[in-house]
Amino acid sequence: MTKPRPLVRGDQIRVVSPASPVSQEKLDRGIRILEGAGYRVTLGAHALSAEGYLAGSDEGRASDLNEAFADPEVAAIVCSRGGYGCARLFPYLHLHQWAQSGKLFCGFSDLTTLHLALNRLGLVTGHTPMLLTLSVDREPWVVESFLALLAGGDPLRVESQRASPVVGGIAEGEITGGCLCLLCDSIGTEHALDADGKILLIEDVDEAPHRVDAMLTHLLNAGIVQGAAGIVVGEMTRTDERSDPSIGAIPWREIVTERLGGLGVPLVLDFPFGHAANQLSVPLGVKARLDADAGSLSLIETPCAP
Amino acid sequence: MTKPRPLVRGDQIRVVSPASPVSQEKLDRGIRILEGAGYRVTLGAHALSAEGYLAGSDEGRASDLNEAFADPEVAAIVCSRGGYGCARLFPYLHLHQWAQSGKLFCGFSDLTTLHLALNRLGLVTGHTPMLLTLSVDREPWVVESFLALLAGGDPLRVESQRASPVVGGIAEGEITGGCLCLLCDSIGTEHALDADGKILLIEDVDEAPHRVDAMLTHLLNAGIVQGAAGIVVGEMTRTDERSDPSIGAIPWREIVTERLGGLGVPLVLDFPFGHAANQLSVPLGVKARLDADAGSLSLIETPCAP
Repeated sequence: MTKPRPLVRGDQIRVVSPASPVSQEKLDRGIRILEGAGYRVTLGAHALSAEGYLAGSDEGRASDLNEAFADPEVAAIVCSRGGYGCARLFPYLHLHQWAQSGKLFCGFSDLTTLHLALNRLGLVTGHTPMLLTLSVDREPWVVESFLALLAGGDPLRVESQRASPVVGGIAEGEITGGCLCLLCDSIGTEHALDADGKILLIEDVDEAPHRVDAMLTHLLNAGIVQGAAGIVVGEMTRTDERSDPSIGAIPWREIVTERLGGLGVPLVLDFPFGHAANQLSVPLGVKARLDADAGSLSLIETPCAP
Repeated sequence: MTKPRPLVRGDQIRVVSPASPVSQEKLDRGIRILEGAGYRVTLGAHALSAEGYLAGSDEGRASDLNEAFADPEVAAIVCSRGGYGCARLFPYLHLHQWAQSGKLFCGFSDLTTLHLALNRLGLVTGHTPMLLTLSVDREPWVVESFLALLAGGDPLRVESQRASPVVGGIAEGEITGGCLCLLCDSIGTEHALDADGKILLIEDVDEAPHRVDAMLTHLLNAGIVQGAAGIVVGEMTRTDERSDPSIGAIPWREIVTERLGGLGVPLVLDFPFGHAANQLSVPLGVKARLDADAGSLSLIETPCAP
């Protein structure tokens, strides 16, 4: 894997909107946080565009990404928000150039789609908050973890975060994964999730309980999770609230435990990443160690280039 | 393809619940309709079971299906309702025996999962109303079409139904498809949708607009729709009402037109099947002719064995 270059004070961070639209006011707080850490922040030309649920045309969103990865003045790319739109961009992306750029690409949720593609091409990326995430107050360690990753530090060391053990044991492997519905949307495509021998991260938001079951079952039926070295589940945010009374409900932690608990690999729930109220930044494509008994995930190599 | 045997008066129809739970009272009206047509109706042992969003355990739901297909006294299997649950059943199903049974298997929505599997194994199946569908009043031609298929007639002849042309032209091929989210959940599995050279039917219910886009994009990114001979879109029921104000909306007909209109094959919208208020019964695995200019789909072979 190619590790991205860590940022130093004065470096330029480009903010892009590859998925759904966002307003300037939702970006301001995040920009101030990044500027407060000593970085210059610039916006992609189409970062504030909006067409329905997309931040402007596919061509525009893709050109902002291509330009940011090609611009030697840009040190890292941070997404404004998720929503939906990345999967539409593949015909327009210069992915091989991105993978060779050595730039840190940051975001989560819909950005899972691009993380999978870049990790497949050998570039370590950052599963991190986006500017919209930072527009509301979070625990101090959320920003601390994000800034640690940007600067090449260890973003998992900032807080002693414990997940709940379901299946104990120790697993080591590269970290992969992200938002469950995007992981499933990758199946059968050129950029499909490959979890073999890896530590698979899974989380999602606003999914009905039966859809969480359906998506985990899809991963099982496609033979994708069976080879994982370990599984780290975050939160299925607002899933228990989204149950459909016309078909009945099962609590999401029971669903996840029932679907994945029989695989015989270390499994934890409620690891703080993704759509949870407070998230650690997690480098994807970097080797880590999951101690499921202790409920901890720790890096066993640095996320950035020396 | 193996065509199922048509039913004659006195034949037994077995009602099973392979997905979400249903109450006896929701079955009564459908049972009366089938009995009124001269059939005997029996329930699978677990047809009224309920565990959360599932109609009882996987083993129980699967055993009802296996038993119905194996029982020489059962002439056809009609599902009570969809919801969710079929994809969980694969480890327990005797699919090869089902495919050789020559029995008509009927349902839609979550049953898409089993239709795809059975069609792949060579058995023609029926994309039809379920007992829950028949629990409320429908246009007379809904029942007429369903009963025509059960009896080996042409279920598309009952009413001159016209869809809206988007891309004109004529296409001929086997009919495949069903509910979009289940089509996507099949990708990368042993029972995946194969639309090459076929007339692909697509519809869904209660999906957010951006998810309709995401699922059609999944079919595109996985290279599954590009080889279809023609595409028949039903209704994305309640999709425009499910738009998420936090990310913005695009009307579903625009989404479908934009995603699929460029494939260069005949394409129609609003064909009455699936979750639309009134649905034609459509035999899957049977050769048909799509006249997109006329907005019509017609069979070019009989759905049942002579």
